[in-house]
Amino acid sequence: MDIIDKGAAGGGISYSRRMAAEGVGTAMLLAAVVGSGIMGERLAGGNMAVALLANSIATGAALLAIITTFGGVSGAHLNPLVTVADACLGCRPWREVPGYLISQFIGALAGVAAANAMFDEPPISPSTHARAGFSLMFAESIATFGLLLVIHGCSRFARPHLPFAVAGYITAAYWFTSSTSFANPAVTFARTATNTFAGIRAADAPGFVAAQLAGGAAAVVLIRWLFGVPAGAAKTIDNS
Amino acid sequence: MDIIDKGAAGGGISYSRRMAAEGVGTAMLLAAVVGSGIMGERLAGGNMAVALLANSIATGAALLAIITTFGGVSGAHLNPLVTVADACLGCRPWREVPGYLISQFIGALAGVAAANAMFDEPPISPSTHARAGFSLMFAESIATFGLLLVIHGCSRFARPHLPFAVAGYITAAYWFTSSTSFANPAVTFARTATNTFAGIRAADAPGFVAAQLAGGAAAVVLIRWLFGVPAGAAKTIDNS
Amino acid sequence: MDIIDKGAAGGGISYSRRMAAEGVGTAMLLAAVVGSGIMGERLAGGNMAVALLANSIATGAALLAIITTFGGVSGAHLNPLVTVADACLGCRPWREVPGYLISQFIGALAGVAAANAMFDEPPISPSTHARAGFSLMFAESIATFGLLLVIHGCSRFARPHLPFAVAGYITAAYWFTSSTSFANPAVTFARTATNTFAGIRAADAPGFVAAQLAGGAAAVVLIRWLFGVPAGAAKTIDNS
Amino acid sequence: MDIIDKGAAGGGISYSRRMAAEGVGTAMLLAAVVGSGIMGERLAGGNMAVALLANSIATGAALLAIITTFGGVSGAHLNPLVTVADACLGCRPWREVPGYLISQFIGALAGVAAANAMFDEPPISPSTHARAGFSLMFAESIATFGLLLVIHGCSRFARPHLPFAVAGYITAAYWFTSSTSFANPAVTFARTATNTFAGIRAADAPGFVAAQLAGGAAAVVLIRWLFGVPAGAAKTIDNS
Repeated sequence: MDIIDKGAAGGGISYSRRMAAEGVGTAMLLAAVVGSGIMGERLAGGNMAVALLANSIATGAALLAIITTFGGVSGAHLNPLVTVADACLGCRPWREVPGYLISQFIGALAGVAAANAMFDEPPISPSTHARAGFSLMFAESIATFGLLLVIHGCSRFARPHLPFAVAGYITAAYWFTSSTSFANPAVTFARTATNTFAGIRAADAPGFVAAQLAGGAAAVVLIRWLFGVPAGAAKTIDNS
Repeated sequence: MDIIDKGAAGGGISYSRRMAAEGVGTAMLLAAVVGSGIMGERLAGGNMAVALLANSIATGAALLAIITTFGGVSGAHLNPLVTVADACLGCRPWREVPGYLISQFIGALAGVAAANAMFDEPPISPSTHARAGFSLMFAESIATFGLLLVIHGCSRFARPHLPFAVAGYITAAYWFTSSTSFANPAVTFARTATNTFAGIRAADAPGFVAAQLAGGAAAVVLIRWLFGVPAGAAKTIDNS
Repeated sequence: MDIIDKGAAGGGISYSRRMAAEGVGTAMLLAAVVGSGIMGERLAGGNMAVALLANSIATGAALLAIITTFGGVSGAHLNPLVTVADACLGCRPWREVPGYLISQFIGALAGVAAANAMFDEPPISPSTHARAGFSLMFAESIATFGLLLVIHGCSRFARPHLPFAVAGYITAAYWFTSSTSFANPAVTFARTATNTFAGIRAADAPGFVAAQLAGGAAAVVLIRWLFGVPAGAAKTIDNS
Repeated sequence: MDIIDKGAAGGGISYSRRMAAEGVGTAMLLAAVVGSGIMGERLAGGNMAVALLANSIATGAALLAIITTFGGVSGAHLNPLVTVADACLGCRPWREVPGYLISQFIGALAGVAAANAMFDEPPISPSTHARAGFSLMFAESIATFGLLLVIHGCSRFARPHLPFAVAGYITAAYWFTSSTSFANPAVTFARTATNTFAGIRAADAPGFVAAQLAGGAAAVVLIRWLFGVPAGAAKTIDNS
């Protein structure tokens, strides 16, 4: 479903504009994730808790801004799993999924390149940051499961609060999951391209994505029962 | 009362779904409390203020997400004392209380086990973290007293702000009470099962719960006079 | 004016209940200010920036909760200058001012005593924390000036945002004023009674209060011209 | 466009009052930026990440308060580029631009002087803080580009969330851009006048402003296509 869908529902915003919104929004998200990671690590003088505090607060604050900015155009998914779960739950036609996913992956990579360039790193540099093991993969599945629950529960019952809920969830999940909560295949893919604080070794990315898919599938099953499938009318609820 | 009751009031959501929402929501809360405590302590390099900053920000941010997600289904109590106080004040039938409490206790323990597993700790490990003494118990009673005031004051007069108010209150109370504000018997019980930052020795749990009960009872008396008992109509106020 | 006045305007809440709300609310505020200061200083290992970060975040988060909780009953002034400025601007009858002020001063002292007791400090202990000099007094007048502008600008034009605006302002002002922004005579008075992080030497309190009065008077003049005197109708604006 | 325009649209607030609101609001913003930078650096004991955490949280929190306070009077632009972009997009008559800009520049300088005075620094002291190089200028153009997108996307589709979105964006951008996101010519100009944490050498200011103009121009082009030009009716949307 669209996170904030007043525009999408009422105005017939073109598919190309919605794809652009997903691309630019995802680019801004990755620039925030990677850029704040670099800045945090450089300034923290070795205290990784302070670096992660900066990284998590900056990511949550950026998400709040990005979702409110692009939500009215494209729904501000910024995440292939959010788009696919939407289609699974009947909230979005499957034919729109490929364009959304392409925009998200391209945007994510562009955002990483921009962050690297802002901090004088090579635009694309393979990460050597190892993130492997069962407990991290378990954490990724929990992180994704929770994220989809938050998006769909809020969308049904407290839509104007959704940008705050997603931002709050991600800020928290950076801390409460051992994997620091990627919870997003496009983000995982793009973070292989920065050899900095937020990076992940390419070899570890498939495991993360598999775990995310498992968590996402479980969430879809629970959402269908717990929150119910939204009526078509839900898409015209005002977000003001 | 339900924190966000649009769904509960209008849609006749089944008791089993509401119990599930309480269980999953409380599990997410405990995963956030315990997981962020572990991550904070591991990264903080011995600076306990930085660890508690991470723990308190993550807990507040998670609460904001969890309450907005499950509020429309079950009211998002996540706390046996909130449910019991609701029944005392006539906002909820007593027959619904046992199911809510069972869900909260089971969910809390599951959340602790998930957090332990994400961080390669044994799923259930008895805490050795001593938390005793009169001043800590006094703090727990103050923390619970304040929490119930916040929930009922906001519910009457500023319902859309309630998820923010509860999240803000708990983030603050981690710092302004010497006990770091458990304020919740299910949380207290479950935190005996993790031998990490957020743990509490089982021997100290009964004192905490007794103090919480005392603070909660005082709050119910004050709420009845200060805010008044909500009219039935209050349950249909829109939260948008 | 009442910060959130739905209840006060519509329900005819009795003066005694409104005085109680001011008293309990101000007590919670002071418990948060002093308690989080003690906890922050004890845990921060000598890094005063980390202690002030905890203190400022906890105070802002508590204010958000307190204002939304008690705003519907008493307006949640929590501050004699807010009450007096209200009367000066014609938003409140002068005859209600003394009761509000008495409640605020008593509540503030009770909150300090509670915080001290929670942390095993003597309930009342004179502060030896020197806070004097022209620049600190200049800072207090700026802090108070800004606080009143925020309260009245938001009340006129963005009332539902007011609890967030006041919380944000105080969190910021802890950092951007050299005095850490007391901006409240009841708070200043009560903080002379704790010999901890948040305390102020009794000898320095009159200077702070004088500076606050000067800043408040300037704010009232500017508010009258810039925002205009609210019409009676403004008191019935819904805060949902 | 006006960020919160209920007042401006409905009440015919005079041009002089709107100019005053821009001046006072921008002064408060600069006092917050510079003051919290000084306090953060003095207390952080050399850990620049902790200082920037304080600076970024204080700035975001202050922005939330300032935008909600003055938004109903002047739109709370606080930034010449926001005003000029408004005029480019047809949301504001060009004849109002000069007064807004003059107020913003004068207010910004007054805010810096107030911050310096509160902390016993000379009111105006030329900064020696070097901020030069291509990557910083690239960062400024990205920061400004994103800021304008956030303002216009939110204004069209989620106007009540705008103060939160702008505050969140700036808090994040302090971390995710290597330049710490000035993104504002009046802010850049005024920060040459403080030889403290937030200062910038006068010689480096023109490069920052040029980069901001480039980013702003790109944003205006994208906004026109992606969000569309707002209908006149958009100016009367209620912000409650």
